[in-house]
Amino acid sequence: MPSVAVVGATGAVGSVLRGVLRERGYDDVRYFASSRSAGTTLDGRQVEEATPESLADAGVDVAFFAVGATASRELVPHAVRGGALAIDKSSAWRMEPGVPLVVPEVNGPAAAAHQGIVAVPNCSTIQLVCALKPIHDAAVLRAVRVATYQSVSGAGAGAMERLRGESVEQHDLRQEWEREGEEADEEVKIREETRKIMDLPSLPVQATCVRVPVLVGHLEAVWVETERELEPDRARELLAAADGIRMVEFPSPGRAAGGDDVLVGRVRRDPAVPHGLTLLVAGDNLRKGAAVNAVQIAELLLARERVAV
Amino acid sequence: MPSVAVVGATGAVGSVLRGVLRERGYDDVRYFASSRSAGTTLDGRQVEEATPESLADAGVDVAFFAVGATASRELVPHAVRGGALAIDKSSAWRMEPGVPLVVPEVNGPAAAAHQGIVAVPNCSTIQLVCALKPIHDAAVLRAVRVATYQSVSGAGAGAMERLRGESVEQHDLRQEWEREGEEADEEVKIREETRKIMDLPSLPVQATCVRVPVLVGHLEAVWVETERELEPDRARELLAAADGIRMVEFPSPGRAAGGDDVLVGRVRRDPAVPHGLTLLVAGDNLRKGAAVNAVQIAELLLARERVAV
Repeated sequence: MPSVAVVGATGAVGSVLRGVLRERGYDDVRYFASSRSAGTTLDGRQVEEATPESLADAGVDVAFFAVGATASRELVPHAVRGGALAIDKSSAWRMEPGVPLVVPEVNGPAAAAHQGIVAVPNCSTIQLVCALKPIHDAAVLRAVRVATYQSVSGAGAGAMERLRGESVEQHDLRQEWEREGEEADEEVKIREETRKIMDLPSLPVQATCVRVPVLVGHLEAVWVETERELEPDRARELLAAADGIRMVEFPSPGRAAGGDDVLVGRVRRDPAVPHGLTLLVAGDNLRKGAAVNAVQIAELLLARERVAV
Repeated sequence: MPSVAVVGATGAVGSVLRGVLRERGYDDVRYFASSRSAGTTLDGRQVEEATPESLADAGVDVAFFAVGATASRELVPHAVRGGALAIDKSSAWRMEPGVPLVVPEVNGPAAAAHQGIVAVPNCSTIQLVCALKPIHDAAVLRAVRVATYQSVSGAGAGAMERLRGESVEQHDLRQEWEREGEEADEEVKIREETRKIMDLPSLPVQATCVRVPVLVGHLEAVWVETERELEPDRARELLAAADGIRMVEFPSPGRAAGGDDVLVGRVRRDPAVPHGLTLLVAGDNLRKGAAVNAVQIAELLLARERVAV
C-alpha cells in the first residue's frame, strides 16, 4: 500500500477520509492539520502541523487535501515539491488548465495528464456527472437544469453542529453561498465543473442550489435535453449498468448516506421538449462527493503507474 | 359579516382557518368536525359533529371544508343543499367540470360561475400559479418545470408531530405521495390544476415533488419557457407589481410562514432556451396555500353578491 497523508484530518471531509482509508486497508497514514489541532491524537496517531516545510518533507506517495481553498493554494505546491501526488478537495485548483478535475467513472483517463495535482470536484457536481455520463454517451446532452437539495455537512462540521442545536421550528431552507453576479458560487461551480469534466465547454447547465435541514447526503432534481431520442426505459437500463450507480425507487439523502454509490430514481420523460428526461440523483456528499472520489483517483493513478513499471 | 362554518376545524388547515377568520373579524362562526372531536371546545366554541343533516341545517352563508377528499365528497353536497356556499380545500371537487378552481389573484372571475361549490387548489399549485400569471400575461407560457421543497404540514398535523419527535439524524427527504403511473399524485395535481386555473389545457407542466424536514412553508424551484422574450428585469418588475407577491432575495419557507404573500426571488435567465426564466417561489402552505385562499374566495363572491343586490 502507498504511504499517504491526510491534510485537514479533523474536518468534516477529513474525518470521513480517515474512515475510508481505514476501510480500504491503508495503514501508512499521517495526519496533518492547522496549528489549532496539531499535537492532538486521532485514531491513535499524532496530528502534525501542516506547514510548507512539513508537507515538503512528508515523504508520502499521496497527500489528500481536505482544507479550504486559501490553505490549499498555499500548501499543495509544497506537497507536490516533496514528491507527493496531491489530490485536492478544495475549489482552489479545479479550473486550472493543467490540473485534471476527475470523477473516475466519468473521466478517469484525464487523471493521467496530471502534473502533481488532481482536483476533486464539488460534491454536487460529482453525483450529477455520474448520472449525466451514461445519458450523454447514449444521446448527447444539449442542456441540463438542476435544483439541489444539499445537506448541511457540505458546509462543514460547524454547520452540522448548528443544525443539531436548532429546534424543529427553526429549520428552514437556506442559500448561504456567496454570490457571483446573479448566481451563487455553488451554482457557477456546478456549471463550470460539469463542462470541464465532461469536456463539453459550452453545455448549458443551470443550477439552483438550496440547503436543506438534513445532515448528510445531497439530492438533485435534474432535467436533461438530449440531441437524440432516449426512452426512459433505455435510460434506466444504461444508468443501472453504469459504474457507481444504483437505481432505487426514491433516491433520498438518507439512503445514499454511508454508501459509495450514486443513487438514481424517478427517471421519466420530460414532455416539454422532443428529447427530454427528468430524474432524481442522490449521493453521500462526504463519501462519493469527496473522500471516496479522492481515494478512487489515487487508486486509479497508482494502478496505472504499477502497470507502467 | 356573513355567517360561516369551518368543517374540519381541528386539523392543520382547520386550525389556521380559524385563526384567519378571527384576524379578519368574522364572529358568526361555527365549528364542525368528525365524531371523534365533536363535543370538545375550541376558542370557547362547542365543536359540532359534521353529518349530512347537521351541515344541511347549519344555515350558514359559507361553509369552509378542510377535510379529506372522501369526507368532502360525502358532506359538501349537503352543505350546498342547505344553502351554503361550499369552499372546499380537498382534492375531491377540483377537477369537476362545473366547479371553479380558484386563486383570486389569478382567475378570480371564474369563481362567479359556481353552482354552490368552489374548490381551493393544492397548496403547491396556488403559489406556483401566482408567480406564473404575470409571466404568462406578458410573454405567454410554453412550458413549466418545477421541483418542490414541501414542508411536512402539507401532510397534516400528524406529520408535524412526527417531525417534532424525530432526531436530526433521522431527518431525510421523502416522497410519500401515492403513485399514478410514473408520477406522484401530487405531481399530477400540480399539472392538471395549473392547466385548469390558467385555462391552458395543454401546457406542459412537469413537477417533481419532495418533502423536506421543515414544519411550514413550501419552496419551488421553477423553470419557465415563454413564447415571447421577457427580460429578467422586466419579469421582476411585473412580479413585484402583481397582487399577492412580494419580491425577496431568497424566498425561504421560514420567511413565507405566517404571512399571506407569495415570495418570489432569484429570477434569472435560463440560457438553455431562447425565452427561458428560472425563479424561486415560496408560500405558507397553510395560509395562502389553503386557509387564506379559501377566505379570499368567499370575500370575492360575497362582495360581488353585495354589488349585485
